[in-house]
Amino acid sequence: MSLNPWSSDAVTDYDYVFKEFGLSKFSEKISKELDHLLFRRGIVIAHRDFQRVFDRIALKKPFINITGIASSGHYHFGHKVDLDLFIFFKKCGARNYFSISDIDAYTSRPDDKVSSLDDSKQFAVDNVADALALGLSPKDMYVQSNKETRFYEFAFELSKKITHSTFKAIYGHIDLGKVSANLLQYADIMHGQLKEYEGSMPSITGIGLDQDPHARATRDVARRLPYNLELPSFIYFRHQSGLQEGSKMSASQPNTAIFLSDSPKAASKKIMGCFTGGRETAEKQKKLGGRPEICKKYELDLFHLEDDKKLKDIHDKCKAGERLCGQCKQLTCEYVCKFLESHQKKKKKNMKKAEKVVFG
Amino acid sequence: MSLNPWSSDAVTDYDYVFKEFGLSKFSEKISKELDHLLFRRGIVIAHRDFQRVFDRIALKKPFINITGIASSGHYHFGHKVDLDLFIFFKKCGARNYFSISDIDAYTSRPDDKVSSLDDSKQFAVDNVADALALGLSPKDMYVQSNKETRFYEFAFELSKKITHSTFKAIYGHIDLGKVSANLLQYADIMHGQLKEYEGSMPSITGIGLDQDPHARATRDVARRLPYNLELPSFIYFRHQSGLQEGSKMSASQPNTAIFLSDSPKAASKKIMGCFTGGRETAEKQKKLGGRPEICKKYELDLFHLEDDKKLKDIHDKCKAGERLCGQCKQLTCEYVCKFLESHQKKKKKNMKKAEKVVFG
Repeated sequence: MSLNPWSSDAVTDYDYVFKEFGLSKFSEKISKELDHLLFRRGIVIAHRDFQRVFDRIALKKPFINITGIASSGHYHFGHKVDLDLFIFFKKCGARNYFSISDIDAYTSRPDDKVSSLDDSKQFAVDNVADALALGLSPKDMYVQSNKETRFYEFAFELSKKITHSTFKAIYGHIDLGKVSANLLQYADIMHGQLKEYEGSMPSITGIGLDQDPHARATRDVARRLPYNLELPSFIYFRHQSGLQEGSKMSASQPNTAIFLSDSPKAASKKIMGCFTGGRETAEKQKKLGGRPEICKKYELDLFHLEDDKKLKDIHDKCKAGERLCGQCKQLTCEYVCKFLESHQKKKKKNMKKAEKVVFG
Repeated sequence: MSLNPWSSDAVTDYDYVFKEFGLSKFSEKISKELDHLLFRRGIVIAHRDFQRVFDRIALKKPFINITGIASSGHYHFGHKVDLDLFIFFKKCGARNYFSISDIDAYTSRPDDKVSSLDDSKQFAVDNVADALALGLSPKDMYVQSNKETRFYEFAFELSKKITHSTFKAIYGHIDLGKVSANLLQYADIMHGQLKEYEGSMPSITGIGLDQDPHARATRDVARRLPYNLELPSFIYFRHQSGLQEGSKMSASQPNTAIFLSDSPKAASKKIMGCFTGGRETAEKQKKLGGRPEICKKYELDLFHLEDDKKLKDIHDKCKAGERLCGQCKQLTCEYVCKFLESHQKKKKKNMKKAEKVVFG
């Protein structure tokens, strides 16, 4: 039985997705060679044009590695997956472009979430400190509001390469703040290929499946530009869901997510209170076994517990009814708290550096 | 009889315009004190909130002076009026922001007019050289694509302050390139008031009456910004019409406009071939007099012949039938050619400086 709770029931959906949108599955060869839990555990589920990036990795040639965070709040474990993937590609020899998207966070979000550019920059400091603590260096990242003129010029240039009706078809409605945010995101993804930066070369960005229309729009714009850009490649991963039943990780519902800034105590409380696949009674669970495939705690483990053996042990003991949820949650609390303590120490040390990255 | 051919018949229209849009007439006091032909001759016809700028001029306090050119071609005499007004305010002690709008020219125009940002920059060099020859210094102007980050950040910020429906109501339809162009134009008009530039103070921009919706949108955005900006003031002037009957000055119909880059010979040919208010025969004209109020050559004089006495002489001799069109056109050719020769010499000397302004 697979450790990935979605692997069996989801095949049909994915076949549809692959066919309908032209996405590709990862070949076993690629998944095996990309030795990271995100690939091994099927969290990365599909790609668009990844082969050209893979070829560069195999040949030890550079490629561009892009992701970003629209800094409207603290990082949570859902964001951490983006960064884990980014760091993985960094280690593969990429040219790194991690965007702290303070402007786009401001223009695309309502005032009650991000009320000013200054707000956005304050969040950016916090995000940068997290990224530094997780292993990025200042030269791997940039803050949108600190970019050089060429970046902005390029972002505005892109507006001529996408029509109003395409935009409306993709994003449902037109909102000028969202137009700005999207132009900046296209620029985030493509500017590294301009001659003023790395020059034309394959690039990779990890996104959620729901963001594929955005990826296609970006590639469409790339085709229309006069710069002979390589079409940006994308890989798609599942979003980690929230800790409560049926929830998404959301900053506005703090119980759904563990934030990198949560105290170990607060994080433990969230884990202990999360939705599991446990049965109504201990007896029943011992008899029938638990259900990791619907357990939010197990999902957290799947995304973040690095040790494959420990993960298998959690999975198997649960299925066999050998370990009840309370005890199982304790195990997760342990490694999460250990991570948070260590991370927050590193983050604290990096706060001044982060301020410098944002405010110069 | 007024030297301004529109002064009598247009009063009713303007009363409507003033009432409908909330524009104000220039008081005699202000028109008299602003000693420039554009005011004396009624070419500047209305304003929105000019008093606060006038007060600054009277007190010899600084104010911000803004105009720009969307550089998609050579300057013609119609553009020169914008610059004449700008130079007038410069002499009144303004802080000067003359925008060479290369990015907005590119994003808002079809590819057959401006096919790349590089195209746009080439036009910009030409425009900058003209502006330098006319009396601006590099520090009075900027090229959009050379602006510092704060300018672009501000332009994107503005997108959050104007709704889609307002934008559509003003501009008729949404085109993403036009959205970009407008954001950049709002930024052109307002960024000088940010603390990183002059700080909050009255500002003045001269525009055509048809651009008033744009002015109102800019003021509306200014009100919503968190920077306590002074509402931008505007003055409205008539557009100089084209040299052919019923035409506008247009780069795509070169006979309608005299370009600052036209050779004296080419300019003379355009003037000699322009539409006048002459009668069918010389006899008739001697008897009835000419009609400066419909004469395109007289309009050129009204906008560009600096000497009031000479203008009056042209007007009066025409009305009295004392001078026929051919001879009258010669007079205009003379001062226009003299201006062009002198201007083009100065422009040539400024080409290297202009290249430096654009390409650094």
